[in-house]
Parts: sequence; C-alpha cells; structure tokens
Amino acid sequence: MDEHIVTSYDQELKFIVRRISEMGGQAESQVERAVSALIKNDASLAHSVVADDIILDTAQRELDERAIMTIAKRQPMAQDLREIVGAIRISNDLERIGDLGKNIAKRVVAVTEHQQPVQLVRGIEHLSDLALEQLREVLDSYASRDHRRAESIRARDEEIDAMYTSIFRELLTYMMEDPRNITACTHLLFSAKNIERIGDHATNIAETIYYIKTGEQMGLDRPKDDRTATMTAEGGKPAADLGA
Amino acid sequence: MDEHIVTSYDQELKFIVRRISEMGGQAESQVERAVSALIKNDASLAHSVVADDIILDTAQRELDERAIMTIAKRQPMAQDLREIVGAIRISNDLERIGDLGKNIAKRVVAVTEHQQPVQLVRGIEHLSDLALEQLREVLDSYASRDHRRAESIRARDEEIDAMYTSIFRELLTYMMEDPRNITACTHLLFSAKNIERIGDHATNIAETIYYIKTGEQMGLDRPKDDRTATMTAEGGKPAADLGA
Repeated sequence: MDEHIVTSYDQELKFIVRRISEMGGQAESQVERAVSALIKNDASLAHSVVADDIILDTAQRELDERAIMTIAKRQPMAQDLREIVGAIRISNDLERIGDLGKNIAKRVVAVTEHQQPVQLVRGIEHLSDLALEQLREVLDSYASRDHRRAESIRARDEEIDAMYTSIFRELLTYMMEDPRNITACTHLLFSAKNIERIGDHATNIAETIYYIKTGEQMGLDRPKDDRTATMTAEGGKPAADLGA
Repeated sequence: MDEHIVTSYDQELKFIVRRISEMGGQAESQVERAVSALIKNDASLAHSVVADDIILDTAQRELDERAIMTIAKRQPMAQDLREIVGAIRISNDLERIGDLGKNIAKRVVAVTEHQQPVQLVRGIEHLSDLALEQLREVLDSYASRDHRRAESIRARDEEIDAMYTSIFRELLTYMMEDPRNITACTHLLFSAKNIERIGDHATNIAETIYYIKTGEQMGLDRPKDDRTATMTAEGGKPAADLGA
C-alpha cells in the first residue's frame, strides 16, 4: 500500500470489482458442477446446482443496485464511468452463465434415465472444458485490465463454435441410427447449445473489457457463432447460410 | 400540454421511454416476421429478419449510453432513478427478444428443406401468438405504468410454458416415428424453445415495471418455466422434477 489517498469512489469501485471476481468464480463452479453431474450421472449434484442458482441471481441484483448508486452519487466520468457500466454488463453475463449451468443440471435426470452415448457425453465435457477455459481467461483479463488479451479471447470463440457444430452433427446422426436415442440426445443437444452460449457470454465480457479500457467498441466483425442453425444433418453439409 | 414547466430531466426521460416503445415495436416485428418466414417457408423474409437484427442492437447500445449519462448528470433518486434503471433492463430484454427472432429466422432454410410436419409448424405459430400477445400486453403496461396489469401478465406465462411442453413432446414423438423428421424437428425444437424464452423476457419486463412503480421485487415465486428439461418423451410423462 503506498501513500496514495484512497478516495471513497476508489473504495466503491474496488468493492464492485471484487464482487465481479467472486461472481466469476461462482459461475465457473456452477457450470463445472452441472457438466460433471451430467457426465457422472449424479442427480444429487445436479440438485445442488439448481438450488445454488439463487446465489448468482442475488449477487447480480445487489451489484446492479450498488453500481447504480455509485453512478448517481459520484458522477464518475470517462474510464471511471465505464468501469461501473462495464461491471453492470459483466455481472449480467455472469448471471446468465449461471442460468445456463442450471439449465444443464435440470436435464441430468432426463439424460441419465436413458442409454448414454458415452462418446457424446465426452464431447460435451470437452466442449465445456473449452468454454470454461475461455471464461477463466476472460476473468483474468478483467482482473489485469488486459484488453489485448481480451481481444485474443474473442478470436478463440470460433474453436468452441466449431466443436459445437461437430457435436450437433454427431447427435443428429446418433438419433437417426436409433430412435431410442432421441430423448437423451435432445437433452444433450440443448446442453451443448447452452455451453456454446457460455462461450458467447465470455466473448461479451471480453468486449466489455475492451470497452472499459479504450472507450470504444471492439468492432462488429465478431467471429460468428452458431453455424448449426442452418445445418441439415443427413449429408453432414450445411445448407445455404443465412449469414451473421 | 399544461402550464407545468418541463425540466430537462423530464425531457430526457420522455426520450428514453419513447425509445423503449420503438424498440418494443421492432422486437415484436422481428419475432412476427421470423415465425411467418418459418411457416410460409420464406427464405427471403428470413434473410431480412437476420439483416435487421442490427437495428435493435444499435438501439440498445444507444439507449444504454443515454441512460447512464442521464444518471450521471441528473442524479435522479427514488422512482426517477428506477425509471432509468428500468429502461436499461427493459431494453436489454427487448434486444434479446430480437436475437431470439433472428435465431428462428436462421433456422428457416434447414427446416423448410425437409418434409414439413404441418401441424407442428402450426403449433409453433400458436405458441408465438401467445408469446407476442404477452409482449404487447407488457409493452402496454409499461406505457401506462400499470404494475397491477404487469403482475397478471407474469401469471399467464404458465400458459406459454404448458403449450411449449406439449409441442416439445409432440416433436419428440414425431422424430421417433420417422428418422427423416429428425433434422427439421430439431430445428423446430430450438425454435419453440426460443419462443418460450421470449415469454420469459416478457415476464422479466413485467417484473421491471413492478419494480419501477413500487421499488420492490415482485416476489420470487415466479411461476416456473421450462418443464421439458426434466422430461423423457417415450411415455410422455415427466421424469422426477429437479425443481425451479
């Protein structure tokens, strides 16, 4: 700690930044546990993920209120203002990541009651490893205010999208091979989609970090997300692409 | 117009409220056109929905910035502050409704290339009628600041959820009957899920209206949403429910 006098605004900002980091850890844990419940067929773990969703909901609401009061009381400008606005946006993304984890957890019972296509569940585990790595990286860039690193994270979202596309195709094929796979695979499809969206939220956060540091948008040429929307599965080739 | 002197804060608030209403109309139109493209097998309409998504993205970003500047400059308190915070939340929900519309539009090509289960597409049309009615109602309650009406809207979200559940079950059955239906039905499943989420966003908006007027949360006993997460289709009966 140096001689610098800590103003009250700085204290409020520090509080907010610390809460974001706690929320990040909680979001990560929710997703990790949800996917683990799916893979290990663990209904009681799934239950606890669903029950714990309230933690992030509450944290987001509190952070929102605190951030707004800080803006109203302190009237921060320029980067100070962007810090607070950015925190509101990031906490919103983290809360939604938590929701996606909850939704995966809710599917555990339906999936595990049926025959498990093991290699597909493994694919989903791998997809979630990638998404969680993105999330960790982006939380680290937030902590270090490293907007260059945030930029490189956004670029890597394509990896997640490519893997999601391949899992989507595999799941459709598996469903076609045997109708008894349809129910479990449908829930796995939704789970995979949820994980792909977690990657999108990590990308949102990367964009917010860039905005906080530079005051500018990262540019609209975001590597585009879900290619499966236009995909027909039989031949494994995508139909005419409707674009971004 | 009476003698009352219009302050600059009032003007800014009016501007924000008007923009929300424009965004609401645009979100409604995006969803309507996306579902219409799905039903009429109209790829060119689908293209235009995808292209127009930028309108809501831009509007939300502008409203966000404007609202934050208003808070910083005017330091509104109590209901005035809640008006602005509420507008930020509502514009976020409207932008996401637009995204869901875009996602449905992107599925049009994949769905229409395959044999169309007409009754299922009709089911989705009906589901979207319900969701759009919720959206219109909630935008009206916003315009009239009628939080009692907003409360009744939230209660009706259950109707949408029940219909979504029944469509989900039908789609699974249809996939099991003939594997050639799997691709189209998968995209219809995702489309139905997107529409169900539009209903959730309408519910969020209802909760925000209640918060603006009363300063309180509507209560956590929200009628709970997607029952299909725990559903196994073969027997048509839901598996053990993992709760909210």
